[in-house]
Amino acid sequence: MRPTSQDVIFRSNDPSDLRIGDVMVSVADIPAHAEKVCVLIGVPQDVGVERNGGRQGAAQAPEAIRRALTKLTITGMSEAVSAGRLVIADAGDVETDGKTLEQIHDEQHDIVAEVLRAGYLPIIIGGGHDCAWPTIRAMESAGKPYGVINIDAHADVRPLKEGRSHSGSPFHQLLAMSNSHLLAGGFAEFGLQQHSVAQAHLDFVRDASMHIWMLNEIRRVGVESAWELAWNACATSHRMYVSLDMDAFASAFAPGVSAPAADGFAPAEISACLRHAARSGSLAAFDIVECNPRYDVDGRTAKLAAAMIWEVLSC
Amino acid sequence: MRPTSQDVIFRSNDPSDLRIGDVMVSVADIPAHAEKVCVLIGVPQDVGVERNGGRQGAAQAPEAIRRALTKLTITGMSEAVSAGRLVIADAGDVETDGKTLEQIHDEQHDIVAEVLRAGYLPIIIGGGHDCAWPTIRAMESAGKPYGVINIDAHADVRPLKEGRSHSGSPFHQLLAMSNSHLLAGGFAEFGLQQHSVAQAHLDFVRDASMHIWMLNEIRRVGVESAWELAWNACATSHRMYVSLDMDAFASAFAPGVSAPAADGFAPAEISACLRHAARSGSLAAFDIVECNPRYDVDGRTAKLAAAMIWEVLSC
Amino acid sequence: MRPTSQDVIFRSNDPSDLRIGDVMVSVADIPAHAEKVCVLIGVPQDVGVERNGGRQGAAQAPEAIRRALTKLTITGMSEAVSAGRLVIADAGDVETDGKTLEQIHDEQHDIVAEVLRAGYLPIIIGGGHDCAWPTIRAMESAGKPYGVINIDAHADVRPLKEGRSHSGSPFHQLLAMSNSHLLAGGFAEFGLQQHSVAQAHLDFVRDASMHIWMLNEIRRVGVESAWELAWNACATSHRMYVSLDMDAFASAFAPGVSAPAADGFAPAEISACLRHAARSGSLAAFDIVECNPRYDVDGRTAKLAAAMIWEVLSC
Repeated sequence: MRPTSQDVIFRSNDPSDLRIGDVMVSVADIPAHAEKVCVLIGVPQDVGVERNGGRQGAAQAPEAIRRALTKLTITGMSEAVSAGRLVIADAGDVETDGKTLEQIHDEQHDIVAEVLRAGYLPIIIGGGHDCAWPTIRAMESAGKPYGVINIDAHADVRPLKEGRSHSGSPFHQLLAMSNSHLLAGGFAEFGLQQHSVAQAHLDFVRDASMHIWMLNEIRRVGVESAWELAWNACATSHRMYVSLDMDAFASAFAPGVSAPAADGFAPAEISACLRHAARSGSLAAFDIVECNPRYDVDGRTAKLAAAMIWEVLSC
Repeated sequence: MRPTSQDVIFRSNDPSDLRIGDVMVSVADIPAHAEKVCVLIGVPQDVGVERNGGRQGAAQAPEAIRRALTKLTITGMSEAVSAGRLVIADAGDVETDGKTLEQIHDEQHDIVAEVLRAGYLPIIIGGGHDCAWPTIRAMESAGKPYGVINIDAHADVRPLKEGRSHSGSPFHQLLAMSNSHLLAGGFAEFGLQQHSVAQAHLDFVRDASMHIWMLNEIRRVGVESAWELAWNACATSHRMYVSLDMDAFASAFAPGVSAPAADGFAPAEISACLRHAARSGSLAAFDIVECNPRYDVDGRTAKLAAAMIWEVLSC
Repeated sequence: MRPTSQDVIFRSNDPSDLRIGDVMVSVADIPAHAEKVCVLIGVPQDVGVERNGGRQGAAQAPEAIRRALTKLTITGMSEAVSAGRLVIADAGDVETDGKTLEQIHDEQHDIVAEVLRAGYLPIIIGGGHDCAWPTIRAMESAGKPYGVINIDAHADVRPLKEGRSHSGSPFHQLLAMSNSHLLAGGFAEFGLQQHSVAQAHLDFVRDASMHIWMLNEIRRVGVESAWELAWNACATSHRMYVSLDMDAFASAFAPGVSAPAADGFAPAEISACLRHAARSGSLAAFDIVECNPRYDVDGRTAKLAAAMIWEVLSC
């Protein structure tokens, strides 16, 4: 792991106006017996996006999102932080220099598995959506049943390319595992847009007896109600992994993504889902992927990603 | 007509992931006896916008929108397409080189009229809103009663300039026709913003006993309810022409338009209206106008326009 | 005061399509006995933003917003304007050349106080949010009880820096006044985002027995209902000052601001609040601050600001 550059971390150094950057600790400094420990893990690569024919830039997301996140205040968390009940730690970035995507994924698996073993909440900052695969493998390594919800405009259940993982394949890999600890009916796609997903991909998910919530249906039911239905169907394990692809948002709100979508969620809709997840006590892993600073407009998407992480930290 | 360049058409060539571009046919290849045939007609000009004092760029919209549209999947349409019940055809672009706007309009009239005669649904991709006038004339040429709904921030009922049509005049021309086949009360403006329309223009529409739905009123009633009220008032003919000016959307969602509006519809609101229209069985002609790629942000508006066409194709 | 350059004022010069620019008068030409006189006052400076460590550009807002505002139609106001019941006047800009921020504030105070004395509605176009402080002082100079609502993502209750006012301090200054005419419980913050405000700042407002409406709470209650609750709590004086920081909007709708927020209000939500305020008969002063054309996207934010002023003019 490569420690986060101190230039990236904003600190107010003002006790009356503390920011996330002021209270964030390194993993070495995580105190024992904290109730909730969140560990940021950056994965600054877009190799999987490139393999999937997408446009690169997601490698810059961990830095951009950390810059935005560390500026946010700790309002609502101050007591928990100062009492040591809530710890926000930064494990730095997975080392990517001179590595293949498979090596990067292996290192990501190892750190996520270690964080899970410690009973902490890993918050992975991608990178492309292929980042979900090593996180899934880390959930597997824990040897316990789990569920997964993917908040996304796309299904990301494409087959491997030449036997290799890419940003469109992680949930194919999830559903193709044999002897998986994924619960029966424990996976849901949330927010898919009909014109952006192939029928064969929907069939693949449904044939695995998993759940699909199309954006249209979600709107008919109401986002919060749909989320609770999806959650209750998947979360019987009390170990949930939630993956948030930033292209689930309308590109007005998240212009800086690999594959922008004209329509999609508004920020408050996903905030509400994440608060529900974080408060449930069942959230075991969380990631934010496909933020692409190269196409961002004045940091809008990195700020939105940071705000989403903040919701998970603060609940 | 100028055939669409093959460079513009995206094809996956993957039977398990077919896109609009894979199934789109040329008009020469439309099979007999299809239930629903949609014919794309590009009108790559912005002469009418220029005459109206607007900023140019809409001439590039047919290419940009076709690029985005042909990438969309055929999910939900596959069976109808493979059974030959649904045909998506591309008539190419109206020839504009060396032509006056009047000549361009005449050619547009001829192709739209021909498509209507064949019982197909023309989907015109403008170009400025003056494109609505030749489409109206083609509806007239059919010799049957019809209705029109204009989804727009502006009324576009300005008088001609020096006797000539422009992007602000099409619905003036509609209402000024004598012996028209437009039904009494068969025209509605949908989405007008009070600070963007002159009182005299509202009076002109109301004096013709036609309908105005201001954006504020639509929100009070709810977009879908307001649409159904507007539709039911206009659609007694079972031959409806729906014109969608992209500036009806808030510019956050549709930045690439000739005259952006700070407020306006969200994508899902208009999707719902178009699905209602397409499912009614009464939609006889549809267009999307005023998309202006020159001012677009990362193709956002072209993608939104493509998604709106997709709704009409898929229902 | 520096008169507005005539280049900035759009005029249609078309009696059937009059715009704000056609009917706007200079303050010298305000007729006696008008029922409602609105006076635009520009404050083209961003010194207070700079002092607060923010990014500059708000100095260009008065010009950009006037350009957009004067293009808007007078639909719905025509009769009141032609009958002389409604007057829209432009006092020009506070002189800033070679002045300190304190001198600029003093000049702003003087013109706002003069406008208030005349019984007119001052509409101040900032400038940074420090513009609120001279307006508050002008409300004080009137010697009558008043209330204030700040529509904002941030609380702007930071202490002075080296004894000097800045764009983050105006409501600190408001609440720190002794012998103020501000009513008990007469101040509300409306739209604050939890991760963008320090706990100490929330405490400062609550310790003064004032009101805080966080964006989340507003959404739970509904924007219009929350606004009416905030208004009824503050507006017992029948003299209300409403301050609108453009960063209260989601940056999708208002990208051109000093400190953009990923989430926030949609345009229609604030329109509704402002219509309620303007119709109440209690609106005594209004401003729009923190619009920053340097970061705007195709004038989107200036247009939104203009539309908000239009709502106040037209009610």
